[in-house]
Amino acid sequence: MKSDIDSLMQAANLDAILVSGSAQHNPTMFYLTGGAHMTHGELIKKRGEEAVLYYSPMERDEAARTGLPTRNLMDYNYQELLKESDGNAAQATAKRYKQMLSELGIESGRMAVYGKVEAGPSYTVLTALQQLMPEIEIVGEMGRSVLLQAMETKDASEAERMRRMGQITVEVVDRVASFLQEHKAKDGILVKADDQPLTIGDIKKKISAWVAGLGVENPHGVIFAIGHDAGVPHSTGNPEDLLQLGKTIVFDIFLQEPGGGYHYDFTRTWCLGHAPEAEQKLYDDVKFVFDDIMGGLEANAPFPLLQKRTCDLFEEQGHPTIQSDPRTQEGYVHSIGHGLGLNVHEQPSARGKGNLLKPGVVVTIEPGLYYPEKGMGVRIEDTVYVREDGEIEVLAEYPHDLVLPISKT
Amino acid sequence: MKSDIDSLMQAANLDAILVSGSAQHNPTMFYLTGGAHMTHGELIKKRGEEAVLYYSPMERDEAARTGLPTRNLMDYNYQELLKESDGNAAQATAKRYKQMLSELGIESGRMAVYGKVEAGPSYTVLTALQQLMPEIEIVGEMGRSVLLQAMETKDASEAERMRRMGQITVEVVDRVASFLQEHKAKDGILVKADDQPLTIGDIKKKISAWVAGLGVENPHGVIFAIGHDAGVPHSTGNPEDLLQLGKTIVFDIFLQEPGGGYHYDFTRTWCLGHAPEAEQKLYDDVKFVFDDIMGGLEANAPFPLLQKRTCDLFEEQGHPTIQSDPRTQEGYVHSIGHGLGLNVHEQPSARGKGNLLKPGVVVTIEPGLYYPEKGMGVRIEDTVYVREDGEIEVLAEYPHDLVLPISKT
Repeated sequence: MKSDIDSLMQAANLDAILVSGSAQHNPTMFYLTGGAHMTHGELIKKRGEEAVLYYSPMERDEAARTGLPTRNLMDYNYQELLKESDGNAAQATAKRYKQMLSELGIESGRMAVYGKVEAGPSYTVLTALQQLMPEIEIVGEMGRSVLLQAMETKDASEAERMRRMGQITVEVVDRVASFLQEHKAKDGILVKADDQPLTIGDIKKKISAWVAGLGVENPHGVIFAIGHDAGVPHSTGNPEDLLQLGKTIVFDIFLQEPGGGYHYDFTRTWCLGHAPEAEQKLYDDVKFVFDDIMGGLEANAPFPLLQKRTCDLFEEQGHPTIQSDPRTQEGYVHSIGHGLGLNVHEQPSARGKGNLLKPGVVVTIEPGLYYPEKGMGVRIEDTVYVREDGEIEVLAEYPHDLVLPISKT
Repeated sequence: MKSDIDSLMQAANLDAILVSGSAQHNPTMFYLTGGAHMTHGELIKKRGEEAVLYYSPMERDEAARTGLPTRNLMDYNYQELLKESDGNAAQATAKRYKQMLSELGIESGRMAVYGKVEAGPSYTVLTALQQLMPEIEIVGEMGRSVLLQAMETKDASEAERMRRMGQITVEVVDRVASFLQEHKAKDGILVKADDQPLTIGDIKKKISAWVAGLGVENPHGVIFAIGHDAGVPHSTGNPEDLLQLGKTIVFDIFLQEPGGGYHYDFTRTWCLGHAPEAEQKLYDDVKFVFDDIMGGLEANAPFPLLQKRTCDLFEEQGHPTIQSDPRTQEGYVHSIGHGLGLNVHEQPSARGKGNLLKPGVVVTIEPGLYYPEKGMGVRIEDTVYVREDGEIEVLAEYPHDLVLPISKT
């Protein structure tokens, strides 16, 4: 978590970090500023010292609200630096960084760079800065960076924000369930008052409006896929599809705080009205594994062991898995879960050594089985928090039932 | 426009361009793929040849839908390259780029890089690639890059998409006007049926729900600011503020196609019920300048001349401007407009030489006057398209009236 950053920097032999870009929709800047409403900023942290936030004058108040020590970018006289660099903007920007770094006593050592930025100017400026300050080694970490390691475990306030997103998520899910149940069935499909069929596009529009009305974001869309599409994990659902009774509907929703903040990730599978035998059996198989994994969750367990156990259990049931056949497109074809936070997928991963369910992690648990050719798929997903005391908390409770009764005909 | 890319590359002495990242919320990748639903891709264009799009296997169908020639990233055997690079991910990624570039016959020359990416890994990979292929010069353009120059002029299909966003925008604005007018005034403020005051927060929630229901995005929020806040151009409006009659409300809305597509930008200033003399005078001054500038728009005119004329006219009216006092926070404090497209602010700019209203540009025209201490501000903004035939088209018409009559009491 945030309080680990200094020790993580030490372990990675980093003396400073530099974060650039907007504080919105930019996970690392959002993380360190707490989600300030700043369209552009710079943040420099020297190991062992508080991060300093640099702002444009019009965003002074937003910067101040972060509680971080702040400085005005205008005080570095960019126009002067530009003139002295013969109009070379990259040189001028690098010189401004040099001033900022020198003021903080960062003159040598290793400095990692972060932030969601345009590749071209970023590369040019960092290359210029590297030449201007050869005694500093500019480090662009691949993979598990220091900040991703810090973000892996959540403190109480982060967990509370994700809990709140969970509450909003189940509120939306509940509205969708009620909305579906308000409709009558005719000839095996849900229809509106005028007997015209309800479509998945109609449902998605409702979801968008509810999500917006609740003041949160849905940046990656929502999966609401029926029948064949429910059997394709990455299909988001065809807007023109009708709501047939007795077909599996995979409803996967991953909302985010406005401005690119914390996520919640959640999936239910529904059959409207009734579940035919094959659909019920598929659900029972997934629910059995879901309950087994959820019941066995323990702090500090290796996350990849859960992936192995999931594959073993599905194989015992007779399903192909990516363990038995890495190229299978049927059966169990993905990972048991992933870390969740400011990124939809972050640390820990259910693949690879060293990924433990440390106290503080928030992970999804989402077994699923997919048979597109048979026109069905089932996934059940909850998001859990491994609390500091080692207890496992489902951040938002909601029934797992397969059948959504439709009483009107 | 897109068809200019080859000649712009030639003028900038570029032999190739490389674009990385998601095709959503990533303007350059959105531009070249037409907004594919791809979470990760690579795109390489050799000058004079069609761009090639590289996809992850799960996004094969989305990639194919772009109509571009496509290749599967899996065919480059990253795991093999990683092994051969002793687990160095940056080296392996650079080697994969080298394979991709070599296949396209790009072995030397200048290659510009684009895309919204994480600064750290991008820097490391590009540095590794530069070392691996020293005969290629990796170029990160500052400012007016080749793709920004191409994006400056819109073709007919882009203009049509922006026209459609304009229609949705005025639909939302009209709903807001009607919603306000459905309320009654009591003691000089708008109140709900239960006599509780309506707030700006209430309006913003409505706007968000309507925007979502219409299937578009509002990624930067909306400005709905009254009184003092209307006098601060960057204030988005205090959610707790009440809707006082006779105070200026600046309503600036900039919607975007879903997934990070084309924008529309639009501002009206309203006084509910009536306009006091000072507010009316301020509006009249802005409207006079707005009409003058709009009436004088001509294809190929220098955009900065309009900024100068705006300042001159406001000064004649007795207002301070950033021309008469660059540090003023009262009067006219910003630019007359900006290019608009996949970015909220793009080329052309109303500042700096060489910015012409070329056929194909889409720009905002948005004069405004701000007096926060007097509790008022006025801005009027329309978005115009300079058509190929030189005609000036307002992409979405909507009345400019100041007073929004409130009949209920």
